[in-house]
Amino acid sequence: MTRLEKLRQTLAELGLDAVLVTQPDNRRYLSGFRGSTGWLLISSKSALLAVDFRYVEQARLEAPDFEVVHIKGEPITWLPQLATASGIRKIGFESEHLSFATYRKLRTALRQHGIGFTPTDNLVESLRAVKDKDEVDNITAAAALADSAFDYARSIIRPGMKEKQVAWEVEKFLRSQGSETLPFDIIAASGPNSALPHARTSERCIRENEPIVLDLGARVNGYCSDLTRTIVLGNGDDTFRRVYDIVLGAQLTVLATIATGMSGGDADSLARTIIEEAGYGDKFGHGLGHGVGLNPHESPRLSPGSTDVLKENMVFTVEPGIYIPGWGGVRIEDMVVMENGKARPLSRSDKIPNTTSGGLLIR
Amino acid sequence: MTRLEKLRQTLAELGLDAVLVTQPDNRRYLSGFRGSTGWLLISSKSALLAVDFRYVEQARLEAPDFEVVHIKGEPITWLPQLATASGIRKIGFESEHLSFATYRKLRTALRQHGIGFTPTDNLVESLRAVKDKDEVDNITAAAALADSAFDYARSIIRPGMKEKQVAWEVEKFLRSQGSETLPFDIIAASGPNSALPHARTSERCIRENEPIVLDLGARVNGYCSDLTRTIVLGNGDDTFRRVYDIVLGAQLTVLATIATGMSGGDADSLARTIIEEAGYGDKFGHGLGHGVGLNPHESPRLSPGSTDVLKENMVFTVEPGIYIPGWGGVRIEDMVVMENGKARPLSRSDKIPNTTSGGLLIR
Repeated sequence: MTRLEKLRQTLAELGLDAVLVTQPDNRRYLSGFRGSTGWLLISSKSALLAVDFRYVEQARLEAPDFEVVHIKGEPITWLPQLATASGIRKIGFESEHLSFATYRKLRTALRQHGIGFTPTDNLVESLRAVKDKDEVDNITAAAALADSAFDYARSIIRPGMKEKQVAWEVEKFLRSQGSETLPFDIIAASGPNSALPHARTSERCIRENEPIVLDLGARVNGYCSDLTRTIVLGNGDDTFRRVYDIVLGAQLTVLATIATGMSGGDADSLARTIIEEAGYGDKFGHGLGHGVGLNPHESPRLSPGSTDVLKENMVFTVEPGIYIPGWGGVRIEDMVVMENGKARPLSRSDKIPNTTSGGLLIR
Repeated sequence: MTRLEKLRQTLAELGLDAVLVTQPDNRRYLSGFRGSTGWLLISSKSALLAVDFRYVEQARLEAPDFEVVHIKGEPITWLPQLATASGIRKIGFESEHLSFATYRKLRTALRQHGIGFTPTDNLVESLRAVKDKDEVDNITAAAALADSAFDYARSIIRPGMKEKQVAWEVEKFLRSQGSETLPFDIIAASGPNSALPHARTSERCIRENEPIVLDLGARVNGYCSDLTRTIVLGNGDDTFRRVYDIVLGAQLTVLATIATGMSGGDADSLARTIIEEAGYGDKFGHGLGHGVGLNPHESPRLSPGSTDVLKENMVFTVEPGIYIPGWGGVRIEDMVVMENGKARPLSRSDKIPNTTSGGLLIR
């Protein structure tokens, strides 16, 4: 089934005549259109892409399966007419993306035309969470670029380099190797900075024997990758060796044991139990992972209490971490795709943390 | 008055005890916090920044005027308690940013605690539209970087170069000269591609005697710039010379005549009238300009019908354009700051379009 066919099946199940799609990744996923503004109105019979002057030509090129409608002004002026002309009486909207203000204006305008406006949750996101072959191919290419970039980072990193310099050199490498605009700012966090799971890369100079967290990703045909490794120039201290082994053990356990049918919460607890039993439960403050696709953070969520079910052909990260304020942190992150009931890793970078300042591994 | 003082004055006028701020730029503007997730709850007496585990340390560093609250779980679990503890009975929310789904959950949870939840519009955006001195300094620095990048682009551009190559070389230049992550993807659109106002930069090779639209910006301490020039390698055709002169005339007229007190719609029509009278009214399909600050597109809007009033110390773009499908387009964009009732240009790049392939001007 095509993406539109799957969506239409859901619409029929929900008793909706049509759905209004405004979230940019959802819009691109369904239509191919990459512009920053546009509205999809999809019913059982029609697929409309409403765009303003700026995007008419681009929409026709990028969304050949959609009828492009050239709109002017606010949606309250054109949406009721467009719906009425298509015989649509009940429209679902993306309740997690549409703002309250737009909801309120549209509800009033549609009601005046006798058209219902109903919240929906995750209609397109749940489709996006399960990847098709082309998507896995693009993500695999993005993951390979991230692996190359990590190798490159390890080859150039030296004591005395600023975190920002490392991040920028790696970004240049990724872009020159074919990545589109990066999906997120590269994190290069050293020493105490690595204790911040979402550290901003700073002017701090990297030193020997302290943890260095490198978190980076590429983008290929819109699809993202996400890779984290923690390295140390030299050998690190006792804390590093202990913490690294715990995080690595938790990560490898998850990779070996997660299976389709598990919930995101169950997957998370596989890693969390190991880290808790090692005495660092309160130092693993984020979830185990997240889906990756057109957005670097999408469904499914692997975190405490998540009821998202892991399914065949989902792609997500597995990234336990331990963060000790004042000392630093260790995080190890791979991307995987669920195949034949198990996780197949897409990330291939090794997990040997010790690196000489010349980029050579200390074995 | 500080930003918080101004906001509190508005809250008092609206009869609100507090406002919940979730929009990232608004959050940063008020608190200094740059993380990707966090909630501000600001009352007459308190200023709270609620963040999860990932951001506690960063929030304390970046938002010294706020009390950082370490939250766990969804806002329905902690917001009612936080509000009750601060004696807050009526909370305003950002209706143009909060999703319908979050609104509905929070309204229900707050109501159970007897707390009102009221939509507000543009509370923080209207403050942000008027810049203080530090903001103008940062924007001026970002505008200067954009000017340098345009000079650089003109020095390297050659027939046969791909649009993407030009864009990437200019991006490297901007970043190496100190720009943070760019505010938007650079547009380098040549020939027919330049007829798309928001063209995606392609693999097309640039040729002589066709319009080339370069639209680029830098970011300094979070503040953006936005600059467009249209050039031609060689002399261009008759259409180019005619269209260029019309667009330039419209742009220079606006720069010379806009004044504080005008509406965004009035400013827009200054340019639109000139372009219409020249016979190209239907080829100028976007607004004249937009505010620039922490976001590259913010208040005020200069477009048909906009009632936003131009005020002292507002910063915005002036960017008329003419787009002819199949042939190409011309857009000329400067940033200005309103000072002493008039527009002072922040962009300094010249507006002589003709360039030899060696980057020299043809005078």
